[in-house]
Amino acid sequence: MSEGNNVEIICVGNELLIGKTVNTNAHWLAKRITVLGMKVRRITVVGDDLDEIASAVREAISRKPRFIITTGGLGPTFDDKTLEGVALGLNLRLEENEEAMRMIREKYERYYAEGRINSCEMTPHRVKMGRLPEGAKPLPNPVGTAPGVLLEHENIKMIMLPGVPEEMKSIFDESVAPMIREASGNLTFYEASLDVRNLPESELAPMLDVVMHDNPYVYIKSHPKRSEGTSHLELHFSTTSDDSKVAKKRIERAILQLSEMIKKKGGAITPVKD
Amino acid sequence: MSEGNNVEIICVGNELLIGKTVNTNAHWLAKRITVLGMKVRRITVVGDDLDEIASAVREAISRKPRFIITTGGLGPTFDDKTLEGVALGLNLRLEENEEAMRMIREKYERYYAEGRINSCEMTPHRVKMGRLPEGAKPLPNPVGTAPGVLLEHENIKMIMLPGVPEEMKSIFDESVAPMIREASGNLTFYEASLDVRNLPESELAPMLDVVMHDNPYVYIKSHPKRSEGTSHLELHFSTTSDDSKVAKKRIERAILQLSEMIKKKGGAITPVKD
Repeated sequence: MSEGNNVEIICVGNELLIGKTVNTNAHWLAKRITVLGMKVRRITVVGDDLDEIASAVREAISRKPRFIITTGGLGPTFDDKTLEGVALGLNLRLEENEEAMRMIREKYERYYAEGRINSCEMTPHRVKMGRLPEGAKPLPNPVGTAPGVLLEHENIKMIMLPGVPEEMKSIFDESVAPMIREASGNLTFYEASLDVRNLPESELAPMLDVVMHDNPYVYIKSHPKRSEGTSHLELHFSTTSDDSKVAKKRIERAILQLSEMIKKKGGAITPVKD
Repeated sequence: MSEGNNVEIICVGNELLIGKTVNTNAHWLAKRITVLGMKVRRITVVGDDLDEIASAVREAISRKPRFIITTGGLGPTFDDKTLEGVALGLNLRLEENEEAMRMIREKYERYYAEGRINSCEMTPHRVKMGRLPEGAKPLPNPVGTAPGVLLEHENIKMIMLPGVPEEMKSIFDESVAPMIREASGNLTFYEASLDVRNLPESELAPMLDVVMHDNPYVYIKSHPKRSEGTSHLELHFSTTSDDSKVAKKRIERAILQLSEMIKKKGGAITPVKD
């Protein structure tokens, strides 16, 4: 895959670094981005710290991906520092964004009208969510208060999403997925898995070498299900193409060739359904 | 916490970047390292690619943590590239390590004696697991074949662990946890959580500012349970100390102060049991 298809994910949050929270946001994003035809090159997790956020952003930019997507740190509390960190990393000022302020004000007015909050006053902590790096655009948040943020920098689309999974997913699906699909030129990712028993990974390894050599567009990875001695593993086949028939044929051919080699050595195979 | 307490985690594996696998290894390690009194500063995920592994390692080293722990990529297949990537990053040669070769040979001889594999011959793919960066030491793998690896570089302890969770955990507990505990000087991490309802995060935010200011050793982070409008969140209190009584008192004092402020504003509080 060309460098031009790369995406980087940066997750911000101390809760990820102290092992309080499993990083399901990175997993969800990686899967969606892959299926939409782009390639996640790196995932970086940093804490709620301005310098850490700024340096992670600068390092990602230096690798020139097409997209950088951040999660977390957009809310109203003192430790929501992502926009300030991005601004620091790119040497931009934060400024009150009129459109973002309108989105936030409308949300609080609605919550107030519904009796869910005591006041819809735009306090400093609420205004904070509408202070974006200069040149950025807010992305509507269909289920929460803090808008997502889009910032174009050196031909890289930077997208900042909230850390609450429902909010992150709904902004992604509504505003980000269409951009990624367009950038990938409708490439799609195809995959299939085989469950293999009675053959240890070290005996399978030379077979993979042969089949990968004969099927250069198919990537095969073996995932031992427990320790090697138990001889149970999953083989994952994947390829990327703009033609689903071509992709399917590639994967079928690789599976057929490898299956015959495995059976000859006494291994047992079953396809894995997702 | 001082820079001297920093740990970096590098996870290697395409399956993490395509969203096939949730990174539970990073979560488990982050929690264990935190409880053992050290601080995880960054988690980096890269694919099964020599240059990516090498650059992630070099970048981590430039930040001078006490430990760098990698997961994944130690097995017998072509895409197990971590040791080669580390060697490339540090400009070291790979060489057959006598102790590692003995560990691996003994495992295959046992599997063969138990009838689990067809041959205990040391094939090139099996020898590969015993080729370590020069100067490295193998760490026994109580449940699998590939040994863990310890390499000291510029006062940084680099530890390479397998990606299979059972193997990663058992090498960590047996060989790595004692090193981390010693390095932390028996510091320990303490935490507590409160469940807060009927108070939106934006109204809580200024209270957190006050309580964090008055309790400088306690870190408080708010985790909205869904979108802000629903006014349900978890407050997580944490501190690090070598004295459990001091730590407990610090957290209790911060919880008491914040609870009173929340109740005055009509919020409802319950402690969270893990």
